[in-house]
Amino acid sequence: MPHKQQSGRAFASDNWAGVHPEVLAAMAAANVGHVPSYGADPYTRDAIARISDELGGDAQVFLVFSGTAANVLCLQSMVRSHQGVICAETAHVHTSECGAAEKHIGCKLLPVPSPQGKITVAGIREHLRHVGNEHHVQPRAITITQATEYGTVYTPQEIRAIADFAHANSLLLHMDGARIFNAAVTLNVPLKAITSGAGVDALSFGGTKNGLVAGEAVVFFKLALADDFEFKRMQGMQLSSKMRFIAAQFSALLTNDLWKRSATHANRLAKMLAAELAGIKGVTLTQEVQANEVFVTLPREIIPKLQEQWPFTVWTEATSEVRLITSFDTAEADVTDFVRLVRDAMGTREK
Amino acid sequence: MPHKQQSGRAFASDNWAGVHPEVLAAMAAANVGHVPSYGADPYTRDAIARISDELGGDAQVFLVFSGTAANVLCLQSMVRSHQGVICAETAHVHTSECGAAEKHIGCKLLPVPSPQGKITVAGIREHLRHVGNEHHVQPRAITITQATEYGTVYTPQEIRAIADFAHANSLLLHMDGARIFNAAVTLNVPLKAITSGAGVDALSFGGTKNGLVAGEAVVFFKLALADDFEFKRMQGMQLSSKMRFIAAQFSALLTNDLWKRSATHANRLAKMLAAELAGIKGVTLTQEVQANEVFVTLPREIIPKLQEQWPFTVWTEATSEVRLITSFDTAEADVTDFVRLVRDAMGTREK
Amino acid sequence: MPHKQQSGRAFASDNWAGVHPEVLAAMAAANVGHVPSYGADPYTRDAIARISDELGGDAQVFLVFSGTAANVLCLQSMVRSHQGVICAETAHVHTSECGAAEKHIGCKLLPVPSPQGKITVAGIREHLRHVGNEHHVQPRAITITQATEYGTVYTPQEIRAIADFAHANSLLLHMDGARIFNAAVTLNVPLKAITSGAGVDALSFGGTKNGLVAGEAVVFFKLALADDFEFKRMQGMQLSSKMRFIAAQFSALLTNDLWKRSATHANRLAKMLAAELAGIKGVTLTQEVQANEVFVTLPREIIPKLQEQWPFTVWTEATSEVRLITSFDTAEADVTDFVRLVRDAMGTREK
Amino acid sequence: MPHKQQSGRAFASDNWAGVHPEVLAAMAAANVGHVPSYGADPYTRDAIARISDELGGDAQVFLVFSGTAANVLCLQSMVRSHQGVICAETAHVHTSECGAAEKHIGCKLLPVPSPQGKITVAGIREHLRHVGNEHHVQPRAITITQATEYGTVYTPQEIRAIADFAHANSLLLHMDGARIFNAAVTLNVPLKAITSGAGVDALSFGGTKNGLVAGEAVVFFKLALADDFEFKRMQGMQLSSKMRFIAAQFSALLTNDLWKRSATHANRLAKMLAAELAGIKGVTLTQEVQANEVFVTLPREIIPKLQEQWPFTVWTEATSEVRLITSFDTAEADVTDFVRLVRDAMGTREK
Repeated sequence: MPHKQQSGRAFASDNWAGVHPEVLAAMAAANVGHVPSYGADPYTRDAIARISDELGGDAQVFLVFSGTAANVLCLQSMVRSHQGVICAETAHVHTSECGAAEKHIGCKLLPVPSPQGKITVAGIREHLRHVGNEHHVQPRAITITQATEYGTVYTPQEIRAIADFAHANSLLLHMDGARIFNAAVTLNVPLKAITSGAGVDALSFGGTKNGLVAGEAVVFFKLALADDFEFKRMQGMQLSSKMRFIAAQFSALLTNDLWKRSATHANRLAKMLAAELAGIKGVTLTQEVQANEVFVTLPREIIPKLQEQWPFTVWTEATSEVRLITSFDTAEADVTDFVRLVRDAMGTREK
Repeated sequence: MPHKQQSGRAFASDNWAGVHPEVLAAMAAANVGHVPSYGADPYTRDAIARISDELGGDAQVFLVFSGTAANVLCLQSMVRSHQGVICAETAHVHTSECGAAEKHIGCKLLPVPSPQGKITVAGIREHLRHVGNEHHVQPRAITITQATEYGTVYTPQEIRAIADFAHANSLLLHMDGARIFNAAVTLNVPLKAITSGAGVDALSFGGTKNGLVAGEAVVFFKLALADDFEFKRMQGMQLSSKMRFIAAQFSALLTNDLWKRSATHANRLAKMLAAELAGIKGVTLTQEVQANEVFVTLPREIIPKLQEQWPFTVWTEATSEVRLITSFDTAEADVTDFVRLVRDAMGTREK
Repeated sequence: MPHKQQSGRAFASDNWAGVHPEVLAAMAAANVGHVPSYGADPYTRDAIARISDELGGDAQVFLVFSGTAANVLCLQSMVRSHQGVICAETAHVHTSECGAAEKHIGCKLLPVPSPQGKITVAGIREHLRHVGNEHHVQPRAITITQATEYGTVYTPQEIRAIADFAHANSLLLHMDGARIFNAAVTLNVPLKAITSGAGVDALSFGGTKNGLVAGEAVVFFKLALADDFEFKRMQGMQLSSKMRFIAAQFSALLTNDLWKRSATHANRLAKMLAAELAGIKGVTLTQEVQANEVFVTLPREIIPKLQEQWPFTVWTEATSEVRLITSFDTAEADVTDFVRLVRDAMGTREK
Repeated sequence: MPHKQQSGRAFASDNWAGVHPEVLAAMAAANVGHVPSYGADPYTRDAIARISDELGGDAQVFLVFSGTAANVLCLQSMVRSHQGVICAETAHVHTSECGAAEKHIGCKLLPVPSPQGKITVAGIREHLRHVGNEHHVQPRAITITQATEYGTVYTPQEIRAIADFAHANSLLLHMDGARIFNAAVTLNVPLKAITSGAGVDALSFGGTKNGLVAGEAVVFFKLALADDFEFKRMQGMQLSSKMRFIAAQFSALLTNDLWKRSATHANRLAKMLAAELAGIKGVTLTQEVQANEVFVTLPREIIPKLQEQWPFTVWTEATSEVRLITSFDTAEADVTDFVRLVRDAMGTREK
């Protein structure tokens, strides 16, 4: 962890941010009396109803603690150990979850090149060459990330194309929606247009990166995938005993368009940041900014000093490409301050 | 889930209770600015220091979401899949975690009879008959629960006896401390007297049942067990991205003796409840009340009506033994109301 | 391993015996030219057809290396990790396979008391109390051993009763048939009468203990259990590349009633041994002899000397109960020699 | 399985061949009397001593059934689930074992480009970028295949370079020696020169592909890796009850240089086959022939007809590259017959 947090502001990740005040208030409001544990309470019923409504109406919804868990438990419901999950080579579940899927499911991930974070039917098809051969892991699911790890976004049509290919080939489609809100506001479509309406079978519905303390949902649109899920969640160590407090967070996020307000703000600041940086000579945008992430190359020598004041991640050492993330609580002043610092560093450098 | 929650009060479990107000306040206080994610933040450092100090000073501490996870990840650090964990036949990890340990570790649990919830060296020894024989799972760890699932408590001497036997036989000792605070106040000893000071090697340090939203700690007193634990936690889907909010809860619990105030209260109410119930003809205490749990047999026919108003669990169908649990927020009026209801039901019955 | 093998004869186990000459001859006969690997060869087709015919005609059959593997892969096809397998507390898969089922399936075994090696519907029913409760492992399969680890035998009616109970309760029935041939000759019924005809869903069909080098079959009577089994076998490290040589062994066993000749012989010698020993004062039979195993208590002090010449296993230290096993190649002289030795030891002792 | 086996001769794989007569004879010779099961017998002691001597004198040796199992159990002893195994992207354990390593160990395989089947230090180093970061699988072992899946061979110097890099970076080196004999005769070095003498820590020592029925050995040169291996083998379903018969096969292979005679023959026939094919216009060798495998591109349209008479595998559909494997029992006439057939097919085609 090379970051030296100084100012209490950062572009390191949307999980460096805290909690939206409306979310904390909802938790406090739920802190009344005794209610049944493990989710048999009215708060959880409310959250599930809101999530289901928002996503398409006929979904099975389960609350869990973490995004990694949502991904792994979704996929556990979709594949057996001898089956494989086709994913982007940049997928979080493949690169950044310490092998949780392999450990918990015993399965293999089958990566597809994804220079802009997205995968296509052509890439997926490469993994179908050995179907039926007992020596080879059998593809059974595809996972895509929305928005992707590069801050790019799948259109509803792109998702539908992958879903149709999947279903025509006895595959299931999972979406890692850790930043699904950011994608939806970019596309200006309802959440259901990029999930149930586009053929997605299972969704990791992420709240934490959009202002919750900790709260993710496993959502099944293909309802048979939910069979026995209560047991998988419990055995998977993701059953919250005081579930009302995860539920209250989600209900807040889905009340008065909080999710939309927060994601819209984060996206807007990301675009502002990108636009400002793109105007600086020596800084190059490497990915289209479609959500709340900005990827740029910077001169290697100025990075450490910038990080001291504004922690962020170096994404690709070789090209000194860095990742900057905005969140619901990023201020315009943060952007202008950071951009000024970059300009100064560039100027100093040129002299 | 047979409970029909009416009054917002229950004796069903300490996780039907909400969150202590000091805990929620601490979370709000931690909601300031950006801090590093995944625990590299000052709130987490503070919580870890407090936990380590309270438990013995030289411990490795890791925060996780759930008590099942704390148990399973502790044990994963202690045994390999071909090894076994000796436990009470009533142990939560054996009976009530849906096989999470077997799934995650691939190991076998080796139960010991435990009529009062506790196990003894004699019972443990029975499982050592096949040491060295490749056909048999090899015992490697012992787990005890403090307070036990029957609300009984191990004395420091009892723990030490088991620890000494364990270490003399190349075994490690784990404690499931889901209700460790209740045990400590009963024994009137500091937490370290029943953990590091009594030979415990690893501890699941439970906060949720004593007034947190969700927060447990994995604590290693035998420091080598902590090797690579960061990776196990991440792969085990228990790494909180906004960890400061688990940390803040623990820090609150360990500030101004909140843990002691809450556990003392719950225990006192349990003793009061037990004493009142024991005075009713036809009601029999089945376990000594040493923490915040009361086990009594009731006439079978009065149970459903009682549960309607005061949800609780039938523990043993055959004997109509029920379990009543108090918590930090149980009121004296709850006890007197419930006892009156029992008396009334007994009276009606006798007529 | 306390045995000091002297004479090349033993009552230690049927796997101390070698290979039946007809089996070795069949392997040599199959050693001709090139054939497809991994079972796509005529020898394997022949063995599968013979096994299927013998067991009931409409079965899915897969050859594997070991009996532990047959058990584990059968059960893997029957239960998911959050489900449980009800078994005798004496079941080999529970006591003597080093936790292979827990490791490979991640499931829990749910033991039932079995003083004569057998389990009953009453014992099984005890494990159904928590069906539907997410905190508890969900029973999904029952496994019985035929003949049992105590050398006792389930009648077709007993198997049928368990099967009917299983199917009425959404459970599946597995049989560990490591010594199924010994059971069939005792009962004087065809193999199908105690398998497909009695409601068994999956069978570990054991060859090794009846004169093969190494050869077991996984047999599914409930055909849906065979779905994707080729992949499970491969991933389970049990796919023999030169499978024709396992196949040839099974074909030999099922040719000219070799299985019946061998099992009949072993059973007859066990009964002879039991009868002779029972006539010795101070020796007590502890189990009915229904297959090729004899359980007797002997004076503790004579055991080591007997074992020096005739290796066998002490089954229960506390009662000095020992287990004696006969095999296809046990000679009548072995029995008379051993019995004489016991008599001598008893006599010496009494003086 | 597209092969239509006609003649009883093939170039499909060395496991389409049968068993060397000296091996079958040794099994028959071991079929005498009773010996302890599970490897506590003199035959197993003899085989282990021979293997240890041949490989370097101070090794821990364990016999198992299958090559996949040898690989997986070796690696299980080297890595924990949160660790990774660096391998060639063409490695059998990565591509052709149906995810057995992921399932059994729960770990991740980390592939390195390997156009000639071999990996280099430069490729390995790419996977070390995230050492110490809890979000990423931690590399802990490297596996190389000797001879490789492309029939190429690592020199002792190449192995030593990888071993030195491994050990300097806290990594362990495993060798999949499924065709190690073919490599040794090509290099004209003793087996120890490419194993213990070159820094290998653990070896899958393959017998099956060189004329055994079924027999592989797990060999540890770094002796601490053998700790508790007996239990891992048993739990991994790879403990043969009548182990003397695997042992006898290995002893035969290591007697009178049988391994060398067989591998030398297979290699010589492969070179002969390659030389003949290379002389045909329109046929191109794609890999150097250093063991018993020949890779060539053939005109796509002649392949099916060739396969009808001489089964073999199409390796790369896109380029119509095929793989031809010779074995201990390939005859010179096989080569000349096949080459004539290819010539005829090419000629017919040209007309």
